[in-house]
Amino acid sequence: MRILAIESSARAASVAVTRDGALVAQYFQSSALTHSRTLLKMAENILADIELGLKDIDAVAVARGPGSFTGVRIGVAAAKGLCWGGDIPVIGVSTLEAMAWQGAFPGERVICSVMDARREQIYNAKFRYGDGTLRRLCQDRAIALEELVAEAKNDELPYFFVGDGARLCYNRFLEEGLTAFLPPEPMLMQTAWGVAMAARDKTPEPAFDLEPNYLRLSQAERERLEKSKSN
Amino acid sequence: MRILAIESSARAASVAVTRDGALVAQYFQSSALTHSRTLLKMAENILADIELGLKDIDAVAVARGPGSFTGVRIGVAAAKGLCWGGDIPVIGVSTLEAMAWQGAFPGERVICSVMDARREQIYNAKFRYGDGTLRRLCQDRAIALEELVAEAKNDELPYFFVGDGARLCYNRFLEEGLTAFLPPEPMLMQTAWGVAMAARDKTPEPAFDLEPNYLRLSQAERERLEKSKSN
Repeated sequence: MRILAIESSARAASVAVTRDGALVAQYFQSSALTHSRTLLKMAENILADIELGLKDIDAVAVARGPGSFTGVRIGVAAAKGLCWGGDIPVIGVSTLEAMAWQGAFPGERVICSVMDARREQIYNAKFRYGDGTLRRLCQDRAIALEELVAEAKNDELPYFFVGDGARLCYNRFLEEGLTAFLPPEPMLMQTAWGVAMAARDKTPEPAFDLEPNYLRLSQAERERLEKSKSN
Repeated sequence: MRILAIESSARAASVAVTRDGALVAQYFQSSALTHSRTLLKMAENILADIELGLKDIDAVAVARGPGSFTGVRIGVAAAKGLCWGGDIPVIGVSTLEAMAWQGAFPGERVICSVMDARREQIYNAKFRYGDGTLRRLCQDRAIALEELVAEAKNDELPYFFVGDGARLCYNRFLEEGLTAFLPPEPMLMQTAWGVAMAARDKTPEPAFDLEPNYLRLSQAERERLEKSKSN
């Protein structure tokens, strides 16, 4: 099974092609250019460069959130466009589960996916790796960093951080005297490879049904809600 | 400083652009296409996609071996071509040092770079990571896997394997009851990002002076030598 995977939930954007779980190609950019300019072009280029077409792809996988509202929206829209264009089903996966794959190697540790959600919060989920699969320890959630610190103090295993909030959390954990791991940069940032890995055990669905999962209301929605409450 | 980095020492090929040590973009392919078809095209595409030209690049970095003879030769030739075309200096780095960066995160372990050199040998070098730099524990070498096992039995630290020989060594270490780590696939394979990292503390030189470093004689050279001996 060939998967074309898309990740654009944060500053970086990437696309990857996997075949039966093996990485065939991955293009990654963390430039100042917006994802709306780079993402579809990278998808076109990666297919052309490995001499494949959309007709050779069995499913498009995409990180459908949480993450940057704009980034997630562009990723989901690009995935839908590619699926409709090529008559291909889609697999939407959790951004936090996708990035956890970057810490997925044997060892006694909690893989802790963290994105900086601003407003003193992080998007977070935790996993354990074993026998080639990830086991989820909690649902995707938006919590205060202090809540994660409190949980870690009751956990017996050290935390291995991935995601664009990894450095923030790692530094805070060291301050608290907690054991933690911070991988090198390319392993730390979310990638389309992780999206393809997270998609492996999920059933493709019609692209029409795919929805982003923001976990929180957008700023515009929050402000509208607050306004309607105060009226 | 902007570096355009090239890695083609094994089955996979990649190019990356870094700016002052941060990864701006990386294209990675592990397809059945030969590097002579993919490598320069990837270099052209990555620059075009992030809207840069060769004139914006301060140095080209390349993995100059050890590795596949053909792969290393294509990489070095591509680097020379780009340097001459753009009047840019080159930085040739050890393939084994470049891949060690994929294991470069804090922790008590030996980063062990390994490539399958066939003929029951591995290309190998060992490193420790600390304070943002790699400290080399031995020179690049071609040794038998059994020699590495014997060394590890006298070492106090566990080994963290990177490179296309990582799985081979990891399995052998587990058989011997040794503690070892095997990172997930995209961290395990050599990348152009690692080449750029290894190039950071080295002085660029004129492209004319760059030579591959094969560590061993090629099959053709071995056979000629054996023939001349038997005559």
